[in-house]
Amino acid sequence: MASPAVRDQDNHNDAENSSIGYCGKVMNKVVEFPRKLKKFGQDDPRRIVHSLKVGLAVLLVSLLYYFQPFYNGLGDTAMWAILTVVVVFEFSVGATLGRGLNRILATFLAGALGFGVHHLANLSGDIAHPILIGIFVFLLAASVTFIRFFPRMKARYDYGLLIFILTFCLISVSGYRDEEILEMAHKRASTILIGAFIAVFVCVFICPVWAGEDLHNSVAKNIEKLGSFLEGFGVEYFKVVGSGESNLAHLQGYFSVLNSKQSEETQANFARWEPRHGRFRYRHPWRYYLKIGNLTRQCAYRIDTLSGYLNSEVQTLLNIQNNQVQELCMKMSSESGKALKELAWALKTMTEPCSAASSHITKSRAAANNLKSMLRTNAAAVAGVGGDQVRLLDIVPAVTVASLLSEIVAYAEAIEKSIQKLASFQHVQFKSAERKKPTALTSCKTSSSNVGPHHVITMDRLASLQVQESNKEIGSKFQRIRSAV
Amino acid sequence: MASPAVRDQDNHNDAENSSIGYCGKVMNKVVEFPRKLKKFGQDDPRRIVHSLKVGLAVLLVSLLYYFQPFYNGLGDTAMWAILTVVVVFEFSVGATLGRGLNRILATFLAGALGFGVHHLANLSGDIAHPILIGIFVFLLAASVTFIRFFPRMKARYDYGLLIFILTFCLISVSGYRDEEILEMAHKRASTILIGAFIAVFVCVFICPVWAGEDLHNSVAKNIEKLGSFLEGFGVEYFKVVGSGESNLAHLQGYFSVLNSKQSEETQANFARWEPRHGRFRYRHPWRYYLKIGNLTRQCAYRIDTLSGYLNSEVQTLLNIQNNQVQELCMKMSSESGKALKELAWALKTMTEPCSAASSHITKSRAAANNLKSMLRTNAAAVAGVGGDQVRLLDIVPAVTVASLLSEIVAYAEAIEKSIQKLASFQHVQFKSAERKKPTALTSCKTSSSNVGPHHVITMDRLASLQVQESNKEIGSKFQRIRSAV
Repeated sequence: MASPAVRDQDNHNDAENSSIGYCGKVMNKVVEFPRKLKKFGQDDPRRIVHSLKVGLAVLLVSLLYYFQPFYNGLGDTAMWAILTVVVVFEFSVGATLGRGLNRILATFLAGALGFGVHHLANLSGDIAHPILIGIFVFLLAASVTFIRFFPRMKARYDYGLLIFILTFCLISVSGYRDEEILEMAHKRASTILIGAFIAVFVCVFICPVWAGEDLHNSVAKNIEKLGSFLEGFGVEYFKVVGSGESNLAHLQGYFSVLNSKQSEETQANFARWEPRHGRFRYRHPWRYYLKIGNLTRQCAYRIDTLSGYLNSEVQTLLNIQNNQVQELCMKMSSESGKALKELAWALKTMTEPCSAASSHITKSRAAANNLKSMLRTNAAAVAGVGGDQVRLLDIVPAVTVASLLSEIVAYAEAIEKSIQKLASFQHVQFKSAERKKPTALTSCKTSSSNVGPHHVITMDRLASLQVQESNKEIGSKFQRIRSAV
Repeated sequence: MASPAVRDQDNHNDAENSSIGYCGKVMNKVVEFPRKLKKFGQDDPRRIVHSLKVGLAVLLVSLLYYFQPFYNGLGDTAMWAILTVVVVFEFSVGATLGRGLNRILATFLAGALGFGVHHLANLSGDIAHPILIGIFVFLLAASVTFIRFFPRMKARYDYGLLIFILTFCLISVSGYRDEEILEMAHKRASTILIGAFIAVFVCVFICPVWAGEDLHNSVAKNIEKLGSFLEGFGVEYFKVVGSGESNLAHLQGYFSVLNSKQSEETQANFARWEPRHGRFRYRHPWRYYLKIGNLTRQCAYRIDTLSGYLNSEVQTLLNIQNNQVQELCMKMSSESGKALKELAWALKTMTEPCSAASSHITKSRAAANNLKSMLRTNAAAVAGVGGDQVRLLDIVPAVTVASLLSEIVAYAEAIEKSIQKLASFQHVQFKSAERKKPTALTSCKTSSSNVGPHHVITMDRLASLQVQESNKEIGSKFQRIRSAV
């Protein structure tokens, strides 16, 4: 196995570290820093591009100070433009647009409200003025802060609400001293507009990073990771003779899928700010990706449970080597893995998931059904012993693995259906794939009625896990699967 | 089952909604808004308190404008104090302190650097000045933006790095015009200090919300949620006669555990900024909570897999009612559930996990071992039929459930050990519990060598899942478990 080797290397490093002492460690870190920096940039070169873009945007906005005509017009408020560029410029277009729009809208609204309050307070006389302003500032800051807790507001308008409090306080409070409040508000608004415009311009027109495309690719990538695990699982678990070294480390790619929920939700929120780009039209159903992501994660939880049996030494107790169960389990695993990889490819390239994925799913489903009928006949055949007394303990791991694999096959089907549903949305354009094997597709469509022993994904379960929207379409499909069991 | 009733209610609501039309819906929403607001506040009253605190802090800082002596000293830069209060004030003390310190440190460092660059550029003559400043601004903005991508920097210093870019640009660029740069820097620094001080003061001394305590409680709460599920699972799965209505909805509390990673990491990062408070000393090992959280989540993944069998209609095919397997599975489930609840209570109250939890774990482990030996004897007894030919298909779900429960028992043990490890840290004070049942504790300690068929949590697996630090202590314990299998 690969893992003991990894542990040995760790021990070696530990021994090396303890011999070189503290100074050596610090030196090592200093020497390694540029290498780490380089590797970090190479991992995602868009990080370097983004950094250069921020530098450029800041440079552009600082020109406001250097050119006399600009400076005469704006004066010291030009600093608001720099401030806006620095705080608004984000990695993806969606995030930048969201922050920029939030900032502009909130500044205008709060500015107008602040001016109104200032005017009202002015009418009330010198003594009542600060008291009135104080009451308004307290009430507005408290109530808007409370609104910021609402998950929906937090997801899309958190920054805007913050800027709303800020601008309202600045305008209404500073208005007490500054009689030229209108001019100040006007200058501030224009500098913020200039700053936001520069940030958005540089972000959109120089190597843009689209949050929507990132979301699309990461959902596809996650499905692919699960596929890779399943493809490798069978060989690893049954330790097929002649398969060479095992690659446990290679199978751990799915870990990142388990905790992908938050980043997907963030990206979906950003993506909704973005205009149409590349293959994605304006009203692309970004929220639907979260549903596919949820199904992927649920599948990943099963895979995590399954992976627990990989490291188990109990697996060697199995008395069912060289028999049909092993073959069928391996088939379920590898075929559903291939299906998931095909689906990931279809999603990534936006090609209708067709023949290849469906035929793999059909095969994995057929293997599950074969296993089911084999289990139905008798136990002796499964245990691979001739007697009538079966030591159940020996077959527990294999039965569990088969059962989990059967559930994973059901999830692969569910993911296929969800991608088909995505392709059917009004504002989504999936390329139609060449239909080499129409029969495979048809047989897959009908095969959902031949489901195995563990089709346990029901409407209730999905409804509670999915993102606050009813998922009637998928739900009804599962209802059908369920009633067919 | 409760779920069809829930669905019926949904349908009823749908029918009602469609009959009242769009205007009615809007009216409904308007009428319901205050009710929602109230409920949202009642769910966590700290939200209301926090909102009032923000209002108070903003009110306090706006006094800088109203009192002549303050205003004469600070002038228009008083607005930086308002800005600081609004952007620094966060829900928890740790977050506020982190942002405040980041802002102050970054302002000072960037101010000094900006002043240095400004001075250097001044020496170089009028033509070279803007070019030099431009080059510096570009390079600094780009390189600091790149550093912000590093996960470690992002976790703790993201806001500081942003403010660093901002202040450097403001000072070095505006310095081109403003000869009174030192005075400006001085005023800005003092207003930011005043703002940060007010924010931190209000946040810490009026009903403080400690991120560390939140993390502590949420990790304990998550363990309790898993316990609640396991306590209810047995009855629900085997549909014990006379157990009354099932409560599937009640069992869904563990859902939130599955995606708790990110919030726990955020809270741990905030907690590291906090001084000692309540039961937590200064160097409380907050990072260790992430390890307990990881174990809890891995257990939750198994529970999610297990819960798939709850909704399955296949479970009714079981031919093993009224036999010992059912009893043992129920015992494993309920005892490990009770153990987890005891552990959650111990963690929450910081009492050394002792007799009660250990005895429950011992009982669940004993049930697992009994099941194991029963499975070892023969198959017929399990299937509850007299013949020698067992229809394996019928016992597949039960075997899988038993196997998963056995793994969950192992996780409960692992969680117990991790809490014991937490209690043993140098800066952690756990109250010692009254040791009513020392024998139970002892037997639990030794029972780890009698592990069941699925002790599949190995060193490799833990190491890869845990948070970038070696977990040698827990690891070696598992190594022992593993070698004992």
